[in-house]
Amino acid sequence: MARIIGLEALDVRFPTSRRLDGSDAMNPDPDYSAAYVVLRTDADDGFAGHGLVFTIGRGNDVQTAAIHALSHLVVGRDVDEIVADLGAFARSLSADSQLRWLGPEKGVIHMAIGGVINAAWDLAARRAGKPLWRFIAEMSSEQIVAQIDFRYLTDALTPEEAFGILKRAESGKAARIAELIEKGYPAYTTSPGWLGYSDEKLERLAKQAVADGFRTIKLKVGANVEDDVRRCRLARATVGRDIAIAIDANQRWDVGPAIAWLRRLVEFDIAWIEEPTSPDDVLGHAAIRKGVAPMPVSTGEHTHNRVMFKQLLQAQAVDLIQIDAARVGGVNENLAILMLAAKFGVRVFPHAGGVGLCELVQHLAMADFVAISGRMEDRAIEFVDHLHEHFVDPVRIRCGRYLAPSAPGMSAQMKETSIREHRFPGGAVWSQ
Amino acid sequence: MARIIGLEALDVRFPTSRRLDGSDAMNPDPDYSAAYVVLRTDADDGFAGHGLVFTIGRGNDVQTAAIHALSHLVVGRDVDEIVADLGAFARSLSADSQLRWLGPEKGVIHMAIGGVINAAWDLAARRAGKPLWRFIAEMSSEQIVAQIDFRYLTDALTPEEAFGILKRAESGKAARIAELIEKGYPAYTTSPGWLGYSDEKLERLAKQAVADGFRTIKLKVGANVEDDVRRCRLARATVGRDIAIAIDANQRWDVGPAIAWLRRLVEFDIAWIEEPTSPDDVLGHAAIRKGVAPMPVSTGEHTHNRVMFKQLLQAQAVDLIQIDAARVGGVNENLAILMLAAKFGVRVFPHAGGVGLCELVQHLAMADFVAISGRMEDRAIEFVDHLHEHFVDPVRIRCGRYLAPSAPGMSAQMKETSIREHRFPGGAVWSQ
Repeated sequence: MARIIGLEALDVRFPTSRRLDGSDAMNPDPDYSAAYVVLRTDADDGFAGHGLVFTIGRGNDVQTAAIHALSHLVVGRDVDEIVADLGAFARSLSADSQLRWLGPEKGVIHMAIGGVINAAWDLAARRAGKPLWRFIAEMSSEQIVAQIDFRYLTDALTPEEAFGILKRAESGKAARIAELIEKGYPAYTTSPGWLGYSDEKLERLAKQAVADGFRTIKLKVGANVEDDVRRCRLARATVGRDIAIAIDANQRWDVGPAIAWLRRLVEFDIAWIEEPTSPDDVLGHAAIRKGVAPMPVSTGEHTHNRVMFKQLLQAQAVDLIQIDAARVGGVNENLAILMLAAKFGVRVFPHAGGVGLCELVQHLAMADFVAISGRMEDRAIEFVDHLHEHFVDPVRIRCGRYLAPSAPGMSAQMKETSIREHRFPGGAVWSQ
Repeated sequence: MARIIGLEALDVRFPTSRRLDGSDAMNPDPDYSAAYVVLRTDADDGFAGHGLVFTIGRGNDVQTAAIHALSHLVVGRDVDEIVADLGAFARSLSADSQLRWLGPEKGVIHMAIGGVINAAWDLAARRAGKPLWRFIAEMSSEQIVAQIDFRYLTDALTPEEAFGILKRAESGKAARIAELIEKGYPAYTTSPGWLGYSDEKLERLAKQAVADGFRTIKLKVGANVEDDVRRCRLARATVGRDIAIAIDANQRWDVGPAIAWLRRLVEFDIAWIEEPTSPDDVLGHAAIRKGVAPMPVSTGEHTHNRVMFKQLLQAQAVDLIQIDAARVGGVNENLAILMLAAKFGVRVFPHAGGVGLCELVQHLAMADFVAISGRMEDRAIEFVDHLHEHFVDPVRIRCGRYLAPSAPGMSAQMKETSIREHRFPGGAVWSQ
């Protein structure tokens, strides 16, 4: 019998604040970082499970400590049991009667739980010899329902409703898998739109994005309204009418100021305004959505659990949602959120960028296409061309689309040399 | 010029799980713990600032690590500047551009910020020679408004409205201070109602509570509905019609089951049902409130910031709220929450118990009475008679009321011997 013999958590940081990439209205100087998780087993197969929690620098040590605090729930457990019932494994981490107080189900402790759960899914998919998207997509509807913790969801989504959604998606699965492998999944790019960029750079990168096949670009907004009007006008003039332009305020505004600011930008046919205000403010998003119609409203990268997503949908506060692979309680909670989105008929545009988020979240979007919503041409995964070189199985983008990963696992594994050089504070990048 | 020369964070745990005190439907085995904060200065006055974050055992090390992660924002700063503008100090901790990602404004990092902010208020009040409640209450209305971060609040409460509420409360302040010192502030007690207690013990402790002068008692519910019916009936028969009985489900239910369960208990004239469901579920609380009327609904001890409280009030999801001294961003955010409650005309019944929570929160309730709401007889502070012996200035209860503290500070300071013996894992209590 194989057991989990180690839960490693490593503080790995990339000094991205030394350039202006990644700057936005709320995050001027991120050092993209990972509290990097490895689940070691004593199985003969030699597989380890890899996961990560994304942070933006300071505090990555706290995130790492939180992952270590889960060791008593993980180390010593039977590997076969874990991979045979990942739903039970996920619930066992969230249910620790003392750790629960630190959330509950939010912030540092919840992200730690998510990182470990993702590592367990990576391990399970590796043992099955499948990329994670396919490992999920080829589960039975019963198995997928069993992954989801319906606690606090049943007023919006019952297990029976979830099962019904999955059953309807069973037909056509094989064709969608073939379509996904052939064409890939639509991507959109934030590369042209960082706040620190000049107009010239915005224009050049927007042109490049269209030439590269992207059908949606995204601009950061929220520092100065006149700048935003000028940048949106420039972007629209550059890409023409057929390319979608989204904007992202990174939680910059109160409700009233958001509405006033965004009304200045309606004329540019905005695909969505992302994070106009506090990610906690469900009712605020609903008020903004009414105030800026017909501009679609979105949020999600900081939405801390399924209960918050449930309310965003119940309150009709958003037109679409972002999901993030490393913010909530791992694959299991993201499956719950994808099921909620399917139930409410809301499109999902996964959040990515940072370090590793593209690698992770592509699997969730692809599993959704094959097994849940059955749709991908009306949605897209965020893509930022940063730091992929540090991964063993990096994302592959062709003509503005994510190619379906074929290597087993969740694509979370970093190269040993990258980890070694970027360990904080001792790695070569930080100690020189 | 005096500077902050140290930010200490100590992992202090009490082995309360060895008895059944503190057991409820979600927290069966808490070890009441404190991530204990000390701000050291090099001032000649010798004062330090004391604060704490309450946890229930495992994870207190993570909480301690999060406090340490704030050192760069605190150590080296000018003490006079900090105490002269605690609003700016509080905002500077919440605004760290990288740490913010770990919340934002929720969970481990936000509680750490709250612990440090509370320690700074403790220090400021000690230097002023006043108990914290009086230090706050004797600020000008302008000064109190300046403590509050109105970000994300202005759709519900503007600085001008807050100022108006405070100005109205200026009249009668001196009389209310005299009344508070003479009579104390109403308390209610959870002592009879822990789930682990026998009916005989419930009855005995309920009688004792009434004899001790408490006008409200609270029972934990949510494990078994027939037990709850029996326990509520017994409690009502024991205390009679004139004593209020509240119940607390500690987040046990989904929306539908909460309504079904609580309808069984309406006949016992319940003062409020506390935490019927997820603390994140604003809309869920609103649905439960409609479904169980006229039973009042409450929540708050796990409500993670002012944005969530704002929505509970906007959605008319609660009839009253709990505040907690150590869950949100310290005194400053609790002032924002008290102002919101005053604006919406909702009563506040502060959460306490655990270790140190009674000591801390009494100051906030008393400051509210004197300077904000002007009311106390229609509300009460929770009281649990646990672990007060470990504090230098413990709460004093007479005839079911908290006596106003007279010693300078926030009453958060623990005795040196208690800290030493309860340090985890090396203290005598843990290593024997």
